[in-house]
Amino acid sequence: MSGPVIGVFDSGFGGLTVLRALVERLPQAEFVFLGDTARLPYGSKSQRTIARYAAESARFLVERQGAKSLVIACNTASALALDAIEAAVPVPVIGVIEPGAEAAAGQTKTGDVMVMATEATVASHAYAAACQRRGLHGIEKACPLLVPLVEEGWTDHAVTEQVVRIYLDEMLAEARAAGQQPDALVLGCTHYPLLRPVLERTVPPGVTVIDSAEATAQRVAIAMAGQAESRAAEAAGMPRIRCFATDSVAKFERLGSRFLGRPVGTVELIDLGG
Amino acid sequence: MSGPVIGVFDSGFGGLTVLRALVERLPQAEFVFLGDTARLPYGSKSQRTIARYAAESARFLVERQGAKSLVIACNTASALALDAIEAAVPVPVIGVIEPGAEAAAGQTKTGDVMVMATEATVASHAYAAACQRRGLHGIEKACPLLVPLVEEGWTDHAVTEQVVRIYLDEMLAEARAAGQQPDALVLGCTHYPLLRPVLERTVPPGVTVIDSAEATAQRVAIAMAGQAESRAAEAAGMPRIRCFATDSVAKFERLGSRFLGRPVGTVELIDLGG
Repeated sequence: MSGPVIGVFDSGFGGLTVLRALVERLPQAEFVFLGDTARLPYGSKSQRTIARYAAESARFLVERQGAKSLVIACNTASALALDAIEAAVPVPVIGVIEPGAEAAAGQTKTGDVMVMATEATVASHAYAAACQRRGLHGIEKACPLLVPLVEEGWTDHAVTEQVVRIYLDEMLAEARAAGQQPDALVLGCTHYPLLRPVLERTVPPGVTVIDSAEATAQRVAIAMAGQAESRAAEAAGMPRIRCFATDSVAKFERLGSRFLGRPVGTVELIDLGG
Repeated sequence: MSGPVIGVFDSGFGGLTVLRALVERLPQAEFVFLGDTARLPYGSKSQRTIARYAAESARFLVERQGAKSLVIACNTASALALDAIEAAVPVPVIGVIEPGAEAAAGQTKTGDVMVMATEATVASHAYAAACQRRGLHGIEKACPLLVPLVEEGWTDHAVTEQVVRIYLDEMLAEARAAGQQPDALVLGCTHYPLLRPVLERTVPPGVTVIDSAEATAQRVAIAMAGQAESRAAEAAGMPRIRCFATDSVAKFERLGSRFLGRPVGTVELIDLGG
């Protein structure tokens, strides 16, 4: 018996970590993933441009692939284009930022929450705003070297550990200087779950690492009203996943399996124009 | 007295290192620089797309800014779109790859030349081909972490030294296993001149570091038939430079001066469509 079609959208293939978490929780659902690789990175583009790209991508997933709900597995698009996407398609849309902040709220005792993210996500202050709505204080840190380190495959490398330590020390020093006592660290980029082991080793004792991808999958599973979740135990075989990209499927196919935790298979090339 | 208008084109702002070398050699020329920041990175896009973007950018510099010659200060565009650019505009066009290979030919005694570059440039094998045309053997190495390290500002940092050492050691080990004795290292990316001090410290004795930006500026100065060069000594005041970008002028203005070696001033935003 087939489950609902869930569309998962990212500017690249980092969002496959979100798809991975979704597949674990909803093994009977059918997934269509679109990476807008021709137009990445969204982070250096204007909000108007990002909104247009994201809306076009969302329409592809809903109108042409039959997605009945959409997961925006891209922090930049979640931060800057969630309204535009909701206006573009008539299905429920869920981003990665609110679930990440919600998970932090469930973990922190001090109310001081650290967020590691890309420059664009930090510049949007979307996590700080989501924390503030929950009465928490968000401390955001742009960590631009982490995505390239993951893509180089150095996820368990001495250099990566050193870079993570530098970013963490800077963030902690700043927080403590302001009298804060952070006890949670949100991974605010879809590449970062691959660094979770390094991060778990590096954070001070008492700091919980929170994965936005994981938190988002949990939220989606709850939104599915338990129907798919309750059938998870009976699920068998491979999940049904189709992957689309707007350019450069080679890198997607080469690196994607590390993010998805299983082979991504053939990635279909589509043209959204632009 | 005013010199000729030289158009300098890059997908981002890394090409400002080429502009810097040009300004030093041709202080009386007038420069128009265009960074196609809205559509970077070119490296992950198809050749057809890169050719279209580069031709549009070239036409902007020639038709709308009056450039009488064009310097393609972008390794990817030089590797994949030089023909398309030459077909699009009626002025002389010079890329960065041939001058880099030519400078290596003038330095190497063994004929074995190492090239550090981005993934896209290495995948094009443009440097290997340019070396081969000169009877040299090019050994190319993709170094995807170096651009982010430069953009993070870690140009003189222990982490960067470690990363450079890893890339160099891998490249040297491979070359030596194949019986080669490289004695030249070409910087095949416009960001890398900022790492020149670290690289000079790290290469084995007897290996010369060659800057494609520098070699390109030299070639342009020669093509200018000595007219501007001979007047270099009399030049005074600030060079005339106008910078344009297709998006995200903030990052351009913030990081650009480190690449140009002087303030970039106001960056004008233009729209090339797409």
